[in-house]
Amino acid sequence: MKKILIANRGEIAIRVMRTAKEMGIKTVAVFSDADRNALHVRYADEAVCIGESASSKSYLVIDKIIDACKQTNADAIHPGYGFLSENAVFARKVQEAGIILIGPSAEAMEIMGNKLSAKAAALSYNIPMVPGTDKAISDIADAKNTAIKIGFPILIKAAAGGGGKGMRIVENAAEFEEQMQLAVSEAISAFGDGAVFIERYVSSPRHIEIQVLGDNFGNIVHLFERDCSIQRRHQKVVEEAPSAVLTEEIRAKMGKCAVDVAKSVNYTGAGTVEFILDENLDFFFLEMNTRLQVEHPISELITGVDLVKEQINIARGEKLRFKQEDLKINGHAIELRVYAEDPKNNFLPDIGKLQTYITPKGNGVRVDDAFEQGMDIPIFYDPMIAKLIAFGDNRTDAIAKLIRAIDEYEITGIETTLSFGKFVMQHEAFISGYYDTHFVAKYFKPEMLNSYCNDEAKMAAALITHLLEKKENKSTTLQVKQNKSAWHKNRKSH
Amino acid sequence: MKKILIANRGEIAIRVMRTAKEMGIKTVAVFSDADRNALHVRYADEAVCIGESASSKSYLVIDKIIDACKQTNADAIHPGYGFLSENAVFARKVQEAGIILIGPSAEAMEIMGNKLSAKAAALSYNIPMVPGTDKAISDIADAKNTAIKIGFPILIKAAAGGGGKGMRIVENAAEFEEQMQLAVSEAISAFGDGAVFIERYVSSPRHIEIQVLGDNFGNIVHLFERDCSIQRRHQKVVEEAPSAVLTEEIRAKMGKCAVDVAKSVNYTGAGTVEFILDENLDFFFLEMNTRLQVEHPISELITGVDLVKEQINIARGEKLRFKQEDLKINGHAIELRVYAEDPKNNFLPDIGKLQTYITPKGNGVRVDDAFEQGMDIPIFYDPMIAKLIAFGDNRTDAIAKLIRAIDEYEITGIETTLSFGKFVMQHEAFISGYYDTHFVAKYFKPEMLNSYCNDEAKMAAALITHLLEKKENKSTTLQVKQNKSAWHKNRKSH
Repeated sequence: MKKILIANRGEIAIRVMRTAKEMGIKTVAVFSDADRNALHVRYADEAVCIGESASSKSYLVIDKIIDACKQTNADAIHPGYGFLSENAVFARKVQEAGIILIGPSAEAMEIMGNKLSAKAAALSYNIPMVPGTDKAISDIADAKNTAIKIGFPILIKAAAGGGGKGMRIVENAAEFEEQMQLAVSEAISAFGDGAVFIERYVSSPRHIEIQVLGDNFGNIVHLFERDCSIQRRHQKVVEEAPSAVLTEEIRAKMGKCAVDVAKSVNYTGAGTVEFILDENLDFFFLEMNTRLQVEHPISELITGVDLVKEQINIARGEKLRFKQEDLKINGHAIELRVYAEDPKNNFLPDIGKLQTYITPKGNGVRVDDAFEQGMDIPIFYDPMIAKLIAFGDNRTDAIAKLIRAIDEYEITGIETTLSFGKFVMQHEAFISGYYDTHFVAKYFKPEMLNSYCNDEAKMAAALITHLLEKKENKSTTLQVKQNKSAWHKNRKSH
Repeated sequence: MKKILIANRGEIAIRVMRTAKEMGIKTVAVFSDADRNALHVRYADEAVCIGESASSKSYLVIDKIIDACKQTNADAIHPGYGFLSENAVFARKVQEAGIILIGPSAEAMEIMGNKLSAKAAALSYNIPMVPGTDKAISDIADAKNTAIKIGFPILIKAAAGGGGKGMRIVENAAEFEEQMQLAVSEAISAFGDGAVFIERYVSSPRHIEIQVLGDNFGNIVHLFERDCSIQRRHQKVVEEAPSAVLTEEIRAKMGKCAVDVAKSVNYTGAGTVEFILDENLDFFFLEMNTRLQVEHPISELITGVDLVKEQINIARGEKLRFKQEDLKINGHAIELRVYAEDPKNNFLPDIGKLQTYITPKGNGVRVDDAFEQGMDIPIFYDPMIAKLIAFGDNRTDAIAKLIRAIDEYEITGIETTLSFGKFVMQHEAFISGYYDTHFVAKYFKPEMLNSYCNDEAKMAAALITHLLEKKENKSTTLQVKQNKSAWHKNRKSH
């Protein structure tokens, strides 16, 4: 493998190129019109324009990606995450074109891309599933018996459903009939089909996922878990590894389950098996992501394994260089996704120019990004600016480092999730380790961010510089107190 | 300890402040006129101007530092490295002023600050010294017998000497008399004193140093070695940890010796015991540095210990939180000191403005610096711009990461040691692990840097951007080959 085309943009394109460079492999960037001046284009050895700004006309067009490979003689494609990364049609076409796809087989993508076939594959290895009906039912008495067997609280959801319609949480048997009737009639009016599924309702769920790596010789290992329970709008925003609540025993059990799920589809490359964990630390299979995850760096930091390097090694036919027993957790890592969105305004995207953009540095801080001061956040793509990752000797240390790094990060011109990240790091529920995916709904109100303002340090710095420049008598001793609270109220006017 | 004044500037001031911030301790910067707009001033909670730009009128003035503490109610001082960090008079005055010095006792500084008393202290623990005469001699027959006992090659050096005057390397006994006579007469004419020392000449020396930490309860541990053999002008420029050549047995032996040297002066805080290692892996005590070293980050990366945090904990009276057996080496780290100096011109300092200044990022890369694009390198102080540190799973990995990071570093406006660093990383002697402090003299010629040029990537990027901006027909596919070698010749003209 001499040249890899990265069928992606932004931080993940650069992240892949960095490892390729370290391995002595040439890189090809692809870019849309909006990304002409993007850093991933500058970072690559070669770059090919693949069309208009909308991803449907560039990053998602299979033939343009394959053409770009042919033009540049790239012998492999790394799809990153998102875009075509889990597209089985793409995987097949790449293979047919004689190009190596750095990822799993099209078959594995297909099976895991569909909830029913994924569940069926996992069931063959006795992977725990959320207890519930495996077929749609509509008879109320039948349903009640099933519900009692599963145990309350239970969730009723429309078989034909989606988007929360026809969904009911039932706390106890006494309420069941009434709620079931409501769910069925809602399902009929919404989807024309009254059949429902019944399953255990996990009231305090954690999203825990296990990183796996499989080679072409049937060897599959796991690289422990990532806890991705801090979410907003049902999307991850803070992740940590290891989880603060798993015991060694449960970690080993989940790890084995994840390896079994991967085995069920002869998985090759890097993948992630997602579980839901309840209050009793019982876990249930959710789905498998057949690609590199956004949050993969935290696993890299606690294991010392470069996941992209292993993906490339596997894709070029090498055997895994380590066994399960060689892998150990060392330290603790936390990632904050720095999005261009306003946590004070329901986390809505906030597009514009990065007027100030200074990234933090120092011991235990990693920033994966693709922006420079003065650049615009393009409206066409995911509004993630950077992944800010802190690595410490232990969890307390990692939290302290992430807070320090958040304070050091200077972004003006755009609202970001930095302040929200600091709120999370300082919240007692997060600090205790006992939190779930309802964290934002339970604890967060926009006005709470007023005391987590990141602009104060910049204000102080600006004022100091101002004072110093005005000072004429250089020989006397000058002292400037950076009284942060005093300036805080005025920060919006600057 | 609520507030620490950092009696230093540049990257080390910021590095100390970062840890203080992570520990919830306030920081005070001091600055000279030249440093009014320096980043360490901006980073601190408070800042005090302590005088004119020359360090003799600011950073080296003990009373100004102590006054700044009193003004700001700082209860401790971190001296960093250089400046007052090993000054026993300063240590005493700080103590008398009721301020905590984050460092060892004035007594330890005094003993280790003098070669003879340091040697005497170390001898009480049977630490190996370079074999030689312990008293100055002038009788030639006497000297020859001693030389034969020590074994050739030997080094004759003037007792009153310095700067290499009166120094002779003698390869065998037959040459001895003649060389001794020459050395004695040179010593008489240079110093008015013909007495000389004779010691074993280590022809292929490595500079290996051991990091130690001691608390106020008599506990002392070592954090393994750093190999600092790549030097220019007798000063370190590349360091790595662990050393590529130590065996586990020698590592343990050197570690024990370093702990013993520290014990001999009841050492507290962070210190470094320096050894010379010969071709047979025999090692000899050189000296002890009673402060944090420039190259401390590589030890932090391979042990997971934040050395500044431990310094602070020790200074506030805490016990060491780990024992020797808790410490393990994990991975490999290499540091390149990025100096504003021209490796093509005998490494002479090259002062000016950082016209472009973009630091590398990503997995396993740490940059400790105190500069931003557009800033000047002040002429008053050490010309170090940054410490570029790569951390990998193993040595090969760390080398690959450092090369990638060097290529990613963009500095224009000033010549730097980046190109020399890449030369070292790609040189077979370094790659093999078998190199010594004569590396530069043996292998390096300025013209060799022509193929290690770092500007080529920037040229390529600039050209691509140029081409893209000129392109009008946006819908066709554009491919730009970054033909680096073609542009290379012209790089000076841009």
